[in-house]
Amino acid sequence: MADLSTCLPLTRASVVEAHELVKPHVHYTPVLTNKTLTALASTPRSPEELKGTKWEGRTPAKPVLRLWFKCENLQRIGAFKVRGAFHAIERLKREPGWLEGGGKEKGVVTHSSGNHAQALALAAKESGIPAHIVMPDISPPNKIAATRGYGANVVFSGSTSVEREAVADRVMAETGARLVPPYDHPDIMLGQGTMGLELQQQVRDLIAAGHSAADPTFNSTGLPASPEGSKGLDAVMTPCGGGGMLSGVALSCEGTGIRVFGAEPEFQGADDCKRGFEAGKRVESVKTLTIADGLRTPVGKHPWSVIYERRLVEAMFSVSEEEIKAAAKLVFERFKLVVEPSGVVPLAVALFNEDFRAMVEREAGGEGWDLGLVFSGGNVAIEGLVKIFAA
Amino acid sequence: MADLSTCLPLTRASVVEAHELVKPHVHYTPVLTNKTLTALASTPRSPEELKGTKWEGRTPAKPVLRLWFKCENLQRIGAFKVRGAFHAIERLKREPGWLEGGGKEKGVVTHSSGNHAQALALAAKESGIPAHIVMPDISPPNKIAATRGYGANVVFSGSTSVEREAVADRVMAETGARLVPPYDHPDIMLGQGTMGLELQQQVRDLIAAGHSAADPTFNSTGLPASPEGSKGLDAVMTPCGGGGMLSGVALSCEGTGIRVFGAEPEFQGADDCKRGFEAGKRVESVKTLTIADGLRTPVGKHPWSVIYERRLVEAMFSVSEEEIKAAAKLVFERFKLVVEPSGVVPLAVALFNEDFRAMVEREAGGEGWDLGLVFSGGNVAIEGLVKIFAA
Repeated sequence: MADLSTCLPLTRASVVEAHELVKPHVHYTPVLTNKTLTALASTPRSPEELKGTKWEGRTPAKPVLRLWFKCENLQRIGAFKVRGAFHAIERLKREPGWLEGGGKEKGVVTHSSGNHAQALALAAKESGIPAHIVMPDISPPNKIAATRGYGANVVFSGSTSVEREAVADRVMAETGARLVPPYDHPDIMLGQGTMGLELQQQVRDLIAAGHSAADPTFNSTGLPASPEGSKGLDAVMTPCGGGGMLSGVALSCEGTGIRVFGAEPEFQGADDCKRGFEAGKRVESVKTLTIADGLRTPVGKHPWSVIYERRLVEAMFSVSEEEIKAAAKLVFERFKLVVEPSGVVPLAVALFNEDFRAMVEREAGGEGWDLGLVFSGGNVAIEGLVKIFAA
Repeated sequence: MADLSTCLPLTRASVVEAHELVKPHVHYTPVLTNKTLTALASTPRSPEELKGTKWEGRTPAKPVLRLWFKCENLQRIGAFKVRGAFHAIERLKREPGWLEGGGKEKGVVTHSSGNHAQALALAAKESGIPAHIVMPDISPPNKIAATRGYGANVVFSGSTSVEREAVADRVMAETGARLVPPYDHPDIMLGQGTMGLELQQQVRDLIAAGHSAADPTFNSTGLPASPEGSKGLDAVMTPCGGGGMLSGVALSCEGTGIRVFGAEPEFQGADDCKRGFEAGKRVESVKTLTIADGLRTPVGKHPWSVIYERRLVEAMFSVSEEEIKAAAKLVFERFKLVVEPSGVVPLAVALFNEDFRAMVEREAGGEGWDLGLVFSGGNVAIEGLVKIFAA
């Protein structure tokens, strides 16, 4: 990982610079629309649906939302994480003294059992750099096999973060490998932010070409198309776990007028970033088993500085496990796409969170918003889906 | 349904004519590639994998296959069936005397509980024509609701085909509605064939634009790209149930030099068309509970005339339930697409059927084939998937 002192500043221009480094290595993933989901997001919920929620008795909001989905589930390794990983590796290769000091032979290390592990393994492999991946010894065999499949050296540890970090420290001491953390580093944040640049450009191009997220023919809600002369997105919402993606996308939107929101599960305190917003102070630890397993970590220090301290994210919203499942089911059955539970959390907010929906109604009025939502990944084994929906 | 005497002849030119009628009403679905699946199809199976199959002890075939997927799972109503349904309705509207005789008020009727029911309901609705759909009274509530959701009048019957046809006859007698069968009619076959025209054009365009189904960078099998000057597909394979799609696609390929194959499940005799090929005689009834539930019907008389009697389909191949499941799992986990079990049967043949694979090796040699495969539909409820994979 590049030294903090040699990192690019956290600005939109740096995201543009990161995009140049990352572009040759990642897929330019499509932006898709789905008339059914856009119509559903723009249909008021019934008072019955609000029963038993904290919005019971409130008049259901009437937002107008045109949804544009950035399909990072179709990204290499099945998730956006390759953007940050490739950026980190490319920056390392450019760090003064790293190559000369034998960095390429010493390699890189991370402690992760998720998408970041596979992303780093792939990015390292393509530069001929060894990658040491510290994984809990209780990791599912298919994840271990997949990580090894990218040529990584898997090193086992206990499953607590303390145990994992101790093993990573030992690997670093033994090999001289450089640590590439999953989110709490400027290089990672800037890399993940590149998806924001693409999303902005793609929606502009699609609208200019006459595409609409709304369907004029089958639109029972009378949903208006994007306004005449629209330049693209009004707002964007991404999932928030460690905050690498959310902070990076927020940087990509700085100065564009596009408003940025973050989405979290609320189960067992997984909404740490939202709670941090309310308390004015970052929540530093979280212990949750939300089905959105990519979002179980607390937001990191560097992402927090962008998300909250610089106020580049306007607000955080959270949803229940049932709402995440309902959104996943809709994406599966109506969009015919496989998106992991973490990846549908922003859609769940747009469909079910009355605070968010009332805000859109209030601020966007009848014209509505063109809202970009990130499908962050698609790595859910069929057995995992069975487990979630068999319950 | 248009009278047989007024139908277009079963030729490629008629498919082109059908396309003009159908195009404004259906999605021009994308043709996608997947490097992982193409690499897998082009990797010989291991002798261990062949153990316990009828190919045990045979030297595994070494075919070179570049796969192009026509994504009809992303079609309106989630399946290709809208093509035939819209074509049938458009032809009806043009049938001499039908409108004048009050046809538009009398409506249409079919007996189906699957994708054809929803397709016909939608196509009728968009022309302001009433649709009567005869469904077994044991149909899943979500299918009944979806069909009603398209504005159809659902009429219940017993679950045998005799009971269903009796109810359809009664509806016709009472309302004067015209029967639109799911596959055994020239209008349906020509409508479904329109996907074949699109697939041919899309692959030509993609290859001309420099796209390849093979990945030159990560191609451990040394897979060659499409040959210099390639004009597109070498072969195409579709699922075969009643044969509407297979016969229509075969017509769309007539005279182009593109070879056409059909794919069936083998479970409980569902491979009726393949058995018909072997016996030289159509198998007229089938009773199977294959998980590929769209392919449980025997091939119809009109499709058979094209598929077998005119030899427009070169050969039929079949796969086991386990092979269908394995293909579905790969599509889900590596392609991130939702495709119903019936829709992955051709892919299962390409990946697992050694007779097919050996034929490709023999006939295409080291240059290989660009093979078009149809993902025919994506209508599987998440509970349905759970049921298939929980076992």
